[in-house]
Amino acid sequence: MNVLILGAAGMVGRKLTERLVRDGHVGGRSISWLILHDVVAPAPPTNAPFSVTTETSDFSAPGQAKALIESRPDIIFHLAAIVSGEAEADFEKGYRINLDGTRELFEAIRAAGDDYRPRVVFTSSIAVFGAPFPDAIGDEFFLTPLTSYGTQKAIGELLLADYTRRGILDGVGIRLPTICVRPGKPNKAASGFFSGIIREPLSGQDAVLPVPDDVRHTHASPRSAVNFLIHAASLSGAQLGSRRSLTMPGVSVTVAEQIDALRRIAGEKVAARIRREPDPTIMRIVEGWPRRFDAERAKNLGFKAEETFDEIIRIHIEDELGGTIVT
Amino acid sequence: MNVLILGAAGMVGRKLTERLVRDGHVGGRSISWLILHDVVAPAPPTNAPFSVTTETSDFSAPGQAKALIESRPDIIFHLAAIVSGEAEADFEKGYRINLDGTRELFEAIRAAGDDYRPRVVFTSSIAVFGAPFPDAIGDEFFLTPLTSYGTQKAIGELLLADYTRRGILDGVGIRLPTICVRPGKPNKAASGFFSGIIREPLSGQDAVLPVPDDVRHTHASPRSAVNFLIHAASLSGAQLGSRRSLTMPGVSVTVAEQIDALRRIAGEKVAARIRREPDPTIMRIVEGWPRRFDAERAKNLGFKAEETFDEIIRIHIEDELGGTIVT
Repeated sequence: MNVLILGAAGMVGRKLTERLVRDGHVGGRSISWLILHDVVAPAPPTNAPFSVTTETSDFSAPGQAKALIESRPDIIFHLAAIVSGEAEADFEKGYRINLDGTRELFEAIRAAGDDYRPRVVFTSSIAVFGAPFPDAIGDEFFLTPLTSYGTQKAIGELLLADYTRRGILDGVGIRLPTICVRPGKPNKAASGFFSGIIREPLSGQDAVLPVPDDVRHTHASPRSAVNFLIHAASLSGAQLGSRRSLTMPGVSVTVAEQIDALRRIAGEKVAARIRREPDPTIMRIVEGWPRRFDAERAKNLGFKAEETFDEIIRIHIEDELGGTIVT
Repeated sequence: MNVLILGAAGMVGRKLTERLVRDGHVGGRSISWLILHDVVAPAPPTNAPFSVTTETSDFSAPGQAKALIESRPDIIFHLAAIVSGEAEADFEKGYRINLDGTRELFEAIRAAGDDYRPRVVFTSSIAVFGAPFPDAIGDEFFLTPLTSYGTQKAIGELLLADYTRRGILDGVGIRLPTICVRPGKPNKAASGFFSGIIREPLSGQDAVLPVPDDVRHTHASPRSAVNFLIHAASLSGAQLGSRRSLTMPGVSVTVAEQIDALRRIAGEKVAARIRREPDPTIMRIVEGWPRRFDAERAKNLGFKAEETFDEIIRIHIEDELGGTIVT
């Protein structure tokens, strides 16, 4: 079986690649060829039990999507996207990659003809939801994006459903919650502090908390994000019916509960590395974000996230810090 | 003030044109120039109190949208669409006109620059909803189209909201219920009988009813459809906030209630012209359609439909039959 990952150089793409190399199969079928694509060169994995090809190009450029599916991949993980902030800053680029690129991919599959009907796992986002919303967002709540990124993801979901209904492809859309703890350096994303207040203290560094302790948000670990993708690739289409996009489960906690978990796991001295510096701009942005989801459909279909924020922290320590924290 | 109607040759477009000619203004502002556009030549109205130009072209062709907004219309009524059945039969044409055409229009407005920010009234459809749904569909129910037409309209709504949020245009989307009584000849649309069982008997002809009497559906008259468009053109954007598309109100009745109303207004002899001929195909299609809406937002914003189906019949007799029925 051939597998294509679009957006393979990103954090989730790299972790998905590692997982596929470790497992050697998806949904009970062996992988024979893995194609890694991104606009920057993806690092080829070592010791893969199958062939690996890396491709670097702008996948929205004419002819690119056609070339990328030349090997007729059975599973396509579509993680390629211009992220929220950039899609907001660059209107044309966001629409070109997130909307036109996705449509080019679907159109290339349509042009390939009747016998080719790959499973397409499309990563959507909770950015398809925009305030005001209920305390917990249910599976039938409407999509009201308040960013161009969220709009483009919502359109991707609609196209995915229609192309699936038409029998052109076999799509599953997954709306990822905030991925926490994100490994790596602090970044300037407004949501960065949710990871930063855990990651930095565990490495002996100070972290800034720009919002009040009672801010609530939903998280899943990078490991869960990969599990979601693998599970989405393995589901049968019949289980999904016509509604092809699902809100993924996650751990809904307040910032205070995040910090309590950090204290339980790493001690008071580590937790004390968090400095409270309220930032009105970030507070206002975070105010418009969803706090909690009733991800019943996804749970019933077997998608699993962590049960507690403690687990999320332990996974970070295990996967990123080699089990060691700086106390 | 300049006004552009895209899709001016259709039934609703013609009635909207008549109304603008009669009123001479929209939202308290006088019309100086009305541009009527369609892919077939729109009939120019007589005795208009303002200039009228008719244009005939494929509005999705390169450069067309730019040419159409050359006069910088203050209000654009976007009624142009490939209808449901044709968009389902011709995948490419549906996406080209309903999605790309709409986007070309919005992009032409964006290219026109900062000073130009027209009110765009986009006619969406209840086809954005697909079964299963609750007994009454509320304003926050999610869009789950089960046709390519419904998908294209839902995408149009998302683009309308994002282009509005960006300050490129000032959009209002209205989801029309089934328009009843449609004037003219019987057509092959699956929903045609809802109008046929009223229109034909009132003209002395037999009509076929292909579904059981307890089928429930929501209707508004052609006169209401025009009222919705005019009201949507007149609303202030501030009243709408970020959620720019609205389900329009209508009269939710069973077929039995439609027939009772016909009997009350035109007598038993007219109602007896309805012949029951169950059609399993039509029954199955109608099964997937919404039955009732809680159009609270639209009602609170002043959109008004008829209160009873009797009113809908009386409007047909007045507007289409010159007040005369064949008893």
